Amino acid sequence: MKEIGIGLLGFGTVGAGVVETLQRNGDLIARRIGVKLALRKIADLELERDRGVKIDRSILTTDARAVVADPKIDIVIELIGGVGIARELVTKALQSGKPVVTANKKLLAEYGKELFALADERNVELGFEASVGGGIPCIRALREGLVANQISAICGILNGTCNYILTKMEQEGRVFDDVLKEAQAAGYAEAEPSLDIDGHDTAHKAAVLAALAYGSNVPMKDVFVEGIRGLAQEDISYAAELGYRIKLLAVIKNENGAVGVRVHPALIRHQHLLAQVSGVFNALLVSGDIVGDTLYYGRGAGRLPTASAVVSDVAEIAERLAAGGHYSRPNLAAQNGSLRLAPIEQASTRSYLRLNVIDKPGVLAKISHVLGKHQISIASMMQKEERRGEQVPVIFLTHEAGEQNCQAALAEIDALDVVKSKTVRLRIADFG
Amino acid sequence: MKEIGIGLLGFGTVGAGVVETLQRNGDLIARRIGVKLALRKIADLELERDRGVKIDRSILTTDARAVVADPKIDIVIELIGGVGIARELVTKALQSGKPVVTANKKLLAEYGKELFALADERNVELGFEASVGGGIPCIRALREGLVANQISAICGILNGTCNYILTKMEQEGRVFDDVLKEAQAAGYAEAEPSLDIDGHDTAHKAAVLAALAYGSNVPMKDVFVEGIRGLAQEDISYAAELGYRIKLLAVIKNENGAVGVRVHPALIRHQHLLAQVSGVFNALLVSGDIVGDTLYYGRGAGRLPTASAVVSDVAEIAERLAAGGHYSRPNLAAQNGSLRLAPIEQASTRSYLRLNVIDKPGVLAKISHVLGKHQISIASMMQKEERRGEQVPVIFLTHEAGEQNCQAALAEIDALDVVKSKTVRLRIADFG
Repeated sequence: MKEIGIGLLGFGTVGAGVVETLQRNGDLIARRIGVKLALRKIADLELERDRGVKIDRSILTTDARAVVADPKIDIVIELIGGVGIARELVTKALQSGKPVVTANKKLLAEYGKELFALADERNVELGFEASVGGGIPCIRALREGLVANQISAICGILNGTCNYILTKMEQEGRVFDDVLKEAQAAGYAEAEPSLDIDGHDTAHKAAVLAALAYGSNVPMKDVFVEGIRGLAQEDISYAAELGYRIKLLAVIKNENGAVGVRVHPALIRHQHLLAQVSGVFNALLVSGDIVGDTLYYGRGAGRLPTASAVVSDVAEIAERLAAGGHYSRPNLAAQNGSLRLAPIEQASTRSYLRLNVIDKPGVLAKISHVLGKHQISIASMMQKEERRGEQVPVIFLTHEAGEQNCQAALAEIDALDVVKSKTVRLRIADFG
Repeated sequence: MKEIGIGLLGFGTVGAGVVETLQRNGDLIARRIGVKLALRKIADLELERDRGVKIDRSILTTDARAVVADPKIDIVIELIGGVGIARELVTKALQSGKPVVTANKKLLAEYGKELFALADERNVELGFEASVGGGIPCIRALREGLVANQISAICGILNGTCNYILTKMEQEGRVFDDVLKEAQAAGYAEAEPSLDIDGHDTAHKAAVLAALAYGSNVPMKDVFVEGIRGLAQEDISYAAELGYRIKLLAVIKNENGAVGVRVHPALIRHQHLLAQVSGVFNALLVSGDIVGDTLYYGRGAGRLPTASAVVSDVAEIAERLAAGGHYSRPNLAAQNGSLRLAPIEQASTRSYLRLNVIDKPGVLAKISHVLGKHQISIASMMQKEERRGEQVPVIFLTHEAGEQNCQAALAEIDALDVVKSKTVRLRIADFG
């Protein structure tokens, strides 16, 4: 059986998962694809730490560049992360005509344009199944399974840390800071959690998905990002009372030929499948003009699930290399001309508004007057009984309204003397 | 741009969907894959009927064999169905080294062994994404996305007709025959509904999935099949009261190296994602040793969703043909040696039992004695208050118990003088 040489750059958590996967299921994979995946080199700066896998020390090296250049290495796996040395090594590998498999969403989101162009130029593959949705084969689904479809929308829960925090807050009625600390102690959140909880990781993934769906690069600056930091427990419980769950959602939507790419917390009706995605799980709802709605669900991160995705890319490339065909598929070529992006100002959504008002006659009239003036109509309203004259929360769910109208109305509302603190606004996800 | 010639055999509902998809999105697909899919021939015995798509009549023919033999046809799409002429034509195409794409689960379930062997021998692809799960790219997920995994279980809702009927029965409290008649009138069920409601269609799909997951043919005779014909409304409502929904489920499970392939109605806890799959939608839960649980959801049938899957296979094959590589992946080769199948008698499940008993002292004692004798322990019991001395339904949910114990206990229970009709037994699906 033909052997294909694999070089692994980055022997961290996922790297060790890849090694474990190849060791445990290497024979099975070889029988399935008709090619043996031979792990020939592993590069990392730190070679002493125990990764929980047995490894022949002779394949270990600190020289990642030498691995890329090694003629016995046919496919390079990049699991270093970040956009420094990882970018250099991926570029080198592609330049020398070697296919690359990466889980690095940040690299793809920020430098995907140049890397995919380079891959196209050299007719090599740049596999990135592991960059979005961990073990869920969603890149493959979008790229191959739905190849016959114009993609109208993708809505995804793409960050396990955020979903874990939101699920805990909802199920246990606890506050954000408390759950975040627990998640950090349990290893579900980083000591520096900003990448996750401020939505940047989800935004990187959204940019990768949008580029794939529309065949055109999406600059990170054009992705609207709002995270879950400081989300109030009371909004989670009011949402629940109204039949909704709050999730950090990536929304990629084609509206009249302009594509909006947004990340923000969103209320989702609890009957909807996406609302059922709990804990560290991820899911993507992908809508195509031919297939309709499809959904993909699984573990969005972790040592082995991510390794499952990495190895699936390696296996597919190895099969092709063994079969002798050249790679000719353009990576980002679906769009005829350049992609028109819709900024958040063009978005139109339903909203959840929580106002903190003085409970006295005429307050509701003032607020509804402002909303009406900005063409925002109220779908439902909830106010709990409190002692007259005190501050009370009032919840509005609005019908669909333009982003700019909404922002203008909120600025006006927050300036009213009866409104005692900044109004909380969360978007409501509507699925068709 | 390179063109790949497509020949379509069978111009029915899905065939017309394929034509519509290629017409609507052909340019987009070409930009995505770098190859133009050129539909050069359509064969059908009936050429006059309006299929709702405009077509150049010169590509229509009644001679399917000539399409297969035509040197301008590079890929053959078989949408005739059945195992007669379809089998002959698929065989001919593969023999002549032409890749085939089919949606024909019956053909694959019954003749997959010889067809896949032939495809392997000639190094051509036999694409079958559309054979299971309609537009859901689940074959691709299993075959490529989860290639690094030993598959421990697949549980699927794979028949839209059955799921539509069950959903209607549950949501509207109506009886089976009534809903079936409505489904037939609406075109969701065939005039001769047995293939769907007796579980055979699901069984064909289960056999295809099992063959793919374990790389070995699964004879249809080894698939246990129980359909939903005559399922009582009261069992659906009792199940709902106990927190379950009833779905027709395909279960493929690797238990200690022996694989059970079964189709039967099953109670699923209503919080579980599979329980949320309503109407004509399908979903598959696939568990792998590396990735954990993954789920795939979408429209399981219909003109366009199925076409989406057909065209995805055609596109992938066209890409490879254009790239010039030969096809070398063994189709059914994962299993080292032959697959050991576990007959239903080796299964072990929880059960829902509805007994129809005379309400008099000592009845419960008799029944629980029989269950205990056969090592079946009771997890919960429900009996509604009725007038003393009348027939009453008593519901038991059991803990996990062997199939043979269960059958022996039921035979004994049904022979008791206090039991007034055959006990209804439904299996309960346990996920991990």
